[in-house]
Amino acid sequence: MRVSEFGGEQALIRLIAEKYGAHPDSSLVKPIGDDAAVILVGGDAIIVTCDMLIENTHFRRDIIEAYEIGWKSVAVNISDIAAMGGTPTYTLISIGIDDQEVALIDESYRGIRDAASQFGSKLIGGDTCFSDSRLIFSVFQLGTAEPERVLYRSGARSGDVVMVTGTLGDSRVGLELLLKHGLTEARMRNEEAVKAHLRPVPRVNEGRLLAKLGIHAAMDLSDGLASDLPKLCEAGGVGAVVYLDSIPVGDSTRKLASEFGHDPARFAVEGGEDYELLFTVAPDGVEPVKSALMDNGLTPATEIGVITDDGKTLLVSSDGSTEPLFVGWRHFPGDLMDA
Amino acid sequence: MRVSEFGGEQALIRLIAEKYGAHPDSSLVKPIGDDAAVILVGGDAIIVTCDMLIENTHFRRDIIEAYEIGWKSVAVNISDIAAMGGTPTYTLISIGIDDQEVALIDESYRGIRDAASQFGSKLIGGDTCFSDSRLIFSVFQLGTAEPERVLYRSGARSGDVVMVTGTLGDSRVGLELLLKHGLTEARMRNEEAVKAHLRPVPRVNEGRLLAKLGIHAAMDLSDGLASDLPKLCEAGGVGAVVYLDSIPVGDSTRKLASEFGHDPARFAVEGGEDYELLFTVAPDGVEPVKSALMDNGLTPATEIGVITDDGKTLLVSSDGSTEPLFVGWRHFPGDLMDA
Repeated sequence: MRVSEFGGEQALIRLIAEKYGAHPDSSLVKPIGDDAAVILVGGDAIIVTCDMLIENTHFRRDIIEAYEIGWKSVAVNISDIAAMGGTPTYTLISIGIDDQEVALIDESYRGIRDAASQFGSKLIGGDTCFSDSRLIFSVFQLGTAEPERVLYRSGARSGDVVMVTGTLGDSRVGLELLLKHGLTEARMRNEEAVKAHLRPVPRVNEGRLLAKLGIHAAMDLSDGLASDLPKLCEAGGVGAVVYLDSIPVGDSTRKLASEFGHDPARFAVEGGEDYELLFTVAPDGVEPVKSALMDNGLTPATEIGVITDDGKTLLVSSDGSTEPLFVGWRHFPGDLMDA
Repeated sequence: MRVSEFGGEQALIRLIAEKYGAHPDSSLVKPIGDDAAVILVGGDAIIVTCDMLIENTHFRRDIIEAYEIGWKSVAVNISDIAAMGGTPTYTLISIGIDDQEVALIDESYRGIRDAASQFGSKLIGGDTCFSDSRLIFSVFQLGTAEPERVLYRSGARSGDVVMVTGTLGDSRVGLELLLKHGLTEARMRNEEAVKAHLRPVPRVNEGRLLAKLGIHAAMDLSDGLASDLPKLCEAGGVGAVVYLDSIPVGDSTRKLASEFGHDPARFAVEGGEDYELLFTVAPDGVEPVKSALMDNGLTPATEIGVITDDGKTLLVSSDGSTEPLFVGWRHFPGDLMDA
């Protein structure tokens, strides 16, 4: 049976975690299954994660600069640390390249170093090896946190309010512009959307603040709300209802999504590569969270729904009709957005 | 300028380390440039390393089983932890696959888990993504050690004795058998040599013991003695003289290398993927090291030369003639042995 018949990447991860993954013990708090693993060393929680970007799966060389491949490969990993409420500390990277121009590798590393240092992480190791057909950027990111303040996917409780930071759909609009017009023209048409796609900004300070405020559950939006919210619900053994009209969509993304023939809010729900934080908080925690983010000059958060106890994740349209949150739009084999 | 014109992988690593790598500070003991990076957390040294195996660069699918790809990808990383005198703790892996049979992935993970658990490490995280053309196994390995007992490449002193564990050249003989005869016939001709190549055994217990015995410098032999000893010498600002007649070569490897038309000892010096430990120790430490390895039932070590202060690495033949240790046999782009 092939992966595609078996149920795709999620089914595969479940198989691997159950059959071969370590089990939690006194020093291993969280094994495979969250945004990152958490281990205890002395009194600290060490957060570790890895994510790999492969040419023609996660990026196409004609619509991204070398600097941005480097930036993005680190940023998506730091986003996992942010989702756990952690502080990035150290970055390692294995790169697979063919006999490229040294300038391309140099530029990639500049992006790697800049993304790492912008979020306080240091580049401490790497491996460079020959790859005869595709560029490969495989990053390992370490972070730290106080053990009692790590955020997990699994903490959502029935009655919690579901929130997201920032706006959704910007990265996907950027990708559509890039696919349609190529790098140069896409940048001219909408620099911000292209930047959202090529140079995502992980919500590190937001994650750390949320961890201090005692929110219940969090994850980063890498595959899109429609795909990621069901994961958060599954981890917590809960369900959720989200309201299409509440999804935060920027004006420019709203306009471009319409031009592409999509319903903007649905387009944003399906999203992908937003790298915003999805989290749940008790109802009386909503205002404190919003004020604290504002007082600290951070990305604001919006209420988009509530956690329920029935295990279903539902989307409520403007007319009040409900439908299951559609998670099937991206299958294994992954497409260009599956980071 | 392309990588091949720039001076290959080593020149590239030097450029990256100097331009973009972190510098040592109070919590970062060793950045890019050793077998692994070393950071301090509380009172512990955390050792972190990453190495990636790419299909058609590091392995060919027709001459390795899925189980062994998994095993080897972890073993070569654990070998880096062993080279630092560390104890493996946690393993993460990013895998790139096309729409394979689930059985292949399952078998790979069995190899991954077995290699990890045989050396006390736990599989705690991973990322599985689509790779349209090559299998990719990118491993991130953590280990731990007492900070004052970490072994580095850089500690060699003039007058030290150069030693290696085990025998050299076995893996290379295995590779030649595989390339010449294919998997099934190669196994029938010499199971042990094939195993040395496909299922290397990192010298974890040997590394830990050597760290306790206060040896001066160590690294693992991944690229072959001829390529790796100059790196150890460069790191320590020293030179070395090694004696061809002292190179430990097993009877079977000696016989097969001759049959392939090679001088067995030279073949073993050029080696590659031995995953034995290369180390230097003060002359009065040689006997204690050999006895301790024997008393603990570990892989024995052999004296192969001495450290000098002139910066050259020389090979002395049986007739007393000397020549520079030849390091250029493997260029970027890497070949199948460049792990």
